[in-house]
Amino acid sequence: MIIKPTLLLDENKCKENINRMFKKAKVHNLAFRPHFKTHQSLEIGLWFKEIGVHKITVSSITMAEYFSEDWDDITIAFPTNINEIESINRLASKITINLAIENIESIAYLAENLKYKVNVYLKVDVGFHRTGINPTNKDLMDAILDVINANSFLSFLGFLGHEGHTYKCRTPEAIKKIHSDSLNIMARLKEFYKSRFPNVIVSLGDTPSCSVAEDFSGVDEIRPGNFVFYDLTQHKIGSNTISQIAVAMACPIVAIHKGRSEIVVYGGGVHFSKDRIEDTEGTIFGRVVEKTEKGWGDIIPEMYVNSLSQEHGIISVRKSEINNYTIGDHLMILPIHSCMTGNLMKQYTTISGKQISRL
Amino acid sequence: MIIKPTLLLDENKCKENINRMFKKAKVHNLAFRPHFKTHQSLEIGLWFKEIGVHKITVSSITMAEYFSEDWDDITIAFPTNINEIESINRLASKITINLAIENIESIAYLAENLKYKVNVYLKVDVGFHRTGINPTNKDLMDAILDVINANSFLSFLGFLGHEGHTYKCRTPEAIKKIHSDSLNIMARLKEFYKSRFPNVIVSLGDTPSCSVAEDFSGVDEIRPGNFVFYDLTQHKIGSNTISQIAVAMACPIVAIHKGRSEIVVYGGGVHFSKDRIEDTEGTIFGRVVEKTEKGWGDIIPEMYVNSLSQEHGIISVRKSEINNYTIGDHLMILPIHSCMTGNLMKQYTTISGKQISRL
Repeated sequence: MIIKPTLLLDENKCKENINRMFKKAKVHNLAFRPHFKTHQSLEIGLWFKEIGVHKITVSSITMAEYFSEDWDDITIAFPTNINEIESINRLASKITINLAIENIESIAYLAENLKYKVNVYLKVDVGFHRTGINPTNKDLMDAILDVINANSFLSFLGFLGHEGHTYKCRTPEAIKKIHSDSLNIMARLKEFYKSRFPNVIVSLGDTPSCSVAEDFSGVDEIRPGNFVFYDLTQHKIGSNTISQIAVAMACPIVAIHKGRSEIVVYGGGVHFSKDRIEDTEGTIFGRVVEKTEKGWGDIIPEMYVNSLSQEHGIISVRKSEINNYTIGDHLMILPIHSCMTGNLMKQYTTISGKQISRL
Repeated sequence: MIIKPTLLLDENKCKENINRMFKKAKVHNLAFRPHFKTHQSLEIGLWFKEIGVHKITVSSITMAEYFSEDWDDITIAFPTNINEIESINRLASKITINLAIENIESIAYLAENLKYKVNVYLKVDVGFHRTGINPTNKDLMDAILDVINANSFLSFLGFLGHEGHTYKCRTPEAIKKIHSDSLNIMARLKEFYKSRFPNVIVSLGDTPSCSVAEDFSGVDEIRPGNFVFYDLTQHKIGSNTISQIAVAMACPIVAIHKGRSEIVVYGGGVHFSKDRIEDTEGTIFGRVVEKTEKGWGDIIPEMYVNSLSQEHGIISVRKSEINNYTIGDHLMILPIHSCMTGNLMKQYTTISGKQISRL
C-alpha cells in the first residue's frame, strides 16, 4: 500500500536508459561523463560503474563531496564558487577535480588559494546566454589561460559548453540545429587553440542533444544527465518516449469531487516541485499513467495534475471515468521535471520495493 | 561569509509578525491556532508558545508527529489520508488530534479503525473549489455527522474552511469581499446546525484574510500560517509590507555578465523552489534587497531573479549598477513563496548567526 507520496523507480527502464546512452557514446567515440545531478544517488551511480563508466559530472561542490566516496574524476559543471575554496582543496587533495571557469576573478583566486592540483575547463557560452564566455572573446580566454599556465596547480583541460537552449525546442530538428551551431562554435575554438594546447578537449551535450543528435564532430566527451530518468519536459522537447520515463510518483487519493470531475491526492509542490509545462490542456504539473502489474503503463487520456498546493495535487479526470477511483487507492503520476522531484523526495522506491537513498 | 545559499531569518521581524497576529486574534476574540506548515520548526514554535499560544494547525500527519513533541492540540488541515491510520492512532493515543473530513468513505474508515478519540471538523468548500463539501450539500454533512454520532471515538468539533482563492486577489478590497462571502457561508451553517450541536465552532482564516480583514463575525478560530515570514506573493496580494518579510536568501555571486547586465548566483530551483509571480518586469522568481548592518533593507529597483535553473539563479541588474558587484560577494533575495523555500532549505540562520532546525 502507498501510505504517503512515494517516488517509484523502474530499475529496468533506468538501466536501459543508461545502457542506450553508454552505447551511443561508444558508437560516436565519445568519452561518457554523465551528469549525476538528476539521480544524486551513490547506488544508481554504481549502475553506471558496472558497465564501465569512470568519470562523472555534478553541478555543485556538495554533490562532488558526496560522490567522491565512489568516484575519482569529477567535473563540477557550474561557475566555480570561490567561497567554497576549503571544500575544493579538500576534494582536490584526494581525487581529480575539473572546474569550470568563466572569469578572471575566479581563476586568480584559485591561483592564490589552491593547495592541490585541479583541471580547468573554460566555460563557453554556446548560445544559451546563462553562463560562459562569449566564444569571440579571445582576450578573456587568453587572460584566463595565462593565469592557468603560470600556476603549477592549474591545468587547462578544454572547453565546456551547455546547450541549455535546447530545452525550448519542441522538435528533434530544432534540437539538431542548436546542436550543429554549438559544434561549429566549439570546433572553431579547438582549431584556434590547438597549436598552443594540442590535447585540449571539447565537452558538450545535454540530454536533448545527446538523445536526438547523430553528429558529434569535434566533441570529445558528453555530459547528459536527465536521460537516466527522463520526464514529461524531455518528452515534450522530443528527447524520449513516454515508456522510457523511469520514475513516477505514487500518491494516495484523499478526496474525489465528481461534480467538477477532480481527484485530490496527497502529493503537492513539496513533493513534485512547481515545475510545469504548457500543454494542450493548458498548464499541467504531471500526467497520470495506468497502473500495471510491473509498475506503470501508458498515459491515461485527459488525466493530469491541473494544480499543486503545498501538500495537495488536483487531478483532472474524464467525467466518464471518475467512478473508477476510490479514496485510499493511489494514482501514479509522471513528473514534469525528474531532477526537481527527485531532489524533493530524497529517496527512490523500486518497483520491487527496494529503497534507494540519495544525497 | 556566505559560503553556500543560506536562508536568513530576521528573528525580530518574525516575532513582530507573530505578535501582531496574536494581538489581532485577541482583539477580535478569536482562538489563535496558527498554521505551522510555513516554518515547520519546533524552535520557532516555541516563540508562539512563549506568548500564550496553545494549539496549532499543520497540513500533514508527518508534521503533526514532529510537532507532537511540544504540542498537545493539533489540527491536521488536510483531507484525512486514511492510509496513515497507524500514525493517526499513534498520535491520538497521546495528544488531541483534530481531523478534516469531507467524504463518507474516510469517516466510515475512521469509525472502523480508530483505537483512540479524535475530533472531527467538516471541511467546507467556501469557494476555493480545491477541497471541501459544498455548503449546500446537507445530505452529505448529515451522513457524515451520523457516523460521527454513532461512534464513541469520534467527536464533531465544527466547520473548517480555507479561503485559498484570496491568493488570486491583488487588493485588500478583493480579499475582504471573498472573506465576507466565506463568513456568510459559515454563519449559515452554524445557524443551521446549532440546535443539534450547540458548541460547534467555525475555523476560518488564511494569511491574506487574517492580515487585512477586520470583520470575523461568527468565526471562532483562525489558522493563518505564512504570516510568520510573509513573502513576495503575500506582498503582491496585499497582506504585508516588504519590511515585514522575515526571511531572505543569501546567495554567493559566481559570475557577472556586464554585456547583458546579469549576475549569476549560486542559488537555484533546489533552493528557492520554482514558484513565481507575474510582475511589472514579467515572470520573476525573487527580488534583491539592500544589505544593511542589521540584515537587509529595501528592494533594489529593477533587480530581480529573472530565471532559475537547478543550481543557478540569474539576476537582472540595472546597467548603471552592474559595476557595484563582485564575484565572491553575495546578494540577499526575498523569496516568492517562503513556505516552499523553507521546505527546500531545511534550516534557518538568524541575522546573529544562530542555526534553527526544522522538519
